[in-house]
Amino acid sequence: MELRAAPSYRTDPPMQAALREARAAGARGEVPVGAVLLAPDGRVLSRAGNEVEQRRDASAHAELLCLRAAAVLLGRTRLDGCSLVATLEPCPMCAAAASHFRVARLVFGAYDPKGGGVEHGPRLYGQPGCLHRPEVIGGVCEREAATLLRDFFRSLRG
Amino acid sequence: MELRAAPSYRTDPPMQAALREARAAGARGEVPVGAVLLAPDGRVLSRAGNEVEQRRDASAHAELLCLRAAAVLLGRTRLDGCSLVATLEPCPMCAAAASHFRVARLVFGAYDPKGGGVEHGPRLYGQPGCLHRPEVIGGVCEREAATLLRDFFRSLRG
Repeated sequence: MELRAAPSYRTDPPMQAALREARAAGARGEVPVGAVLLAPDGRVLSRAGNEVEQRRDASAHAELLCLRAAAVLLGRTRLDGCSLVATLEPCPMCAAAASHFRVARLVFGAYDPKGGGVEHGPRLYGQPGCLHRPEVIGGVCEREAATLLRDFFRSLRG
Repeated sequence: MELRAAPSYRTDPPMQAALREARAAGARGEVPVGAVLLAPDGRVLSRAGNEVEQRRDASAHAELLCLRAAAVLLGRTRLDGCSLVATLEPCPMCAAAASHFRVARLVFGAYDPKGGGVEHGPRLYGQPGCLHRPEVIGGVCEREAATLLRDFFRSLRG
């Protein structure tokens, strides 16, 4: 009898690509968060890690950089059918941006009870005024994403 | 007896500068919202109108452009003591960004019951997890700011 692995979110290739961006960001001294933006056919349109320190830009979160780069690449402000894959639950700024860009799906790794704006805090897509609510899939490669962040903050505290 | 006008928010010079940016944005076919970013001494560090269509960037709201430009100008991610002056109540994305950039004060013109994230919707600065809450002054030159937007949307509907 052949044993087949069930399709597993633990080895999800787009999330693995986002995790590589997160690790590269960490190596640059940024908070290790990464993201990739997928076209409706699964092709990677953009990828980024945090660049807050490098750009001197508190809004240069991986997710926002990815959204912006993909829109410029496609030459339109709406990313219909696209998926944003991020290693961490997006903050309210990035969650709202994903809605402005009309992404169809948001996939994220670790949950962020303190800073997250999707499943925590303002729960933006649950707000009555929210004009576009992406499908949300959280906890993909969660342990790997959470460990990366925990190790980073532990190393900061020395 | 000398009659002195009370200091009036109706003729507030920074808001008038933001309104000029809003009108210029409208003339470019953008939603007419403008913003300026003031240093602690009141000097204008940056000014912008919406550039969503022009940049093909759904996040290119006047407020976010202003915040980013001022931080790059100062060479730091935190805009301590600075004020963000916007013609419209910021959306959740821009409200969260103002918090990330640590602005001391947010001044806005028209209230936005549908899309605003400060006094409406998620009321971001009232969220328990919000790390930095700017002082908020709404309704400055409110009628002028609201009329500009109403006229724009009326003209769109033909």
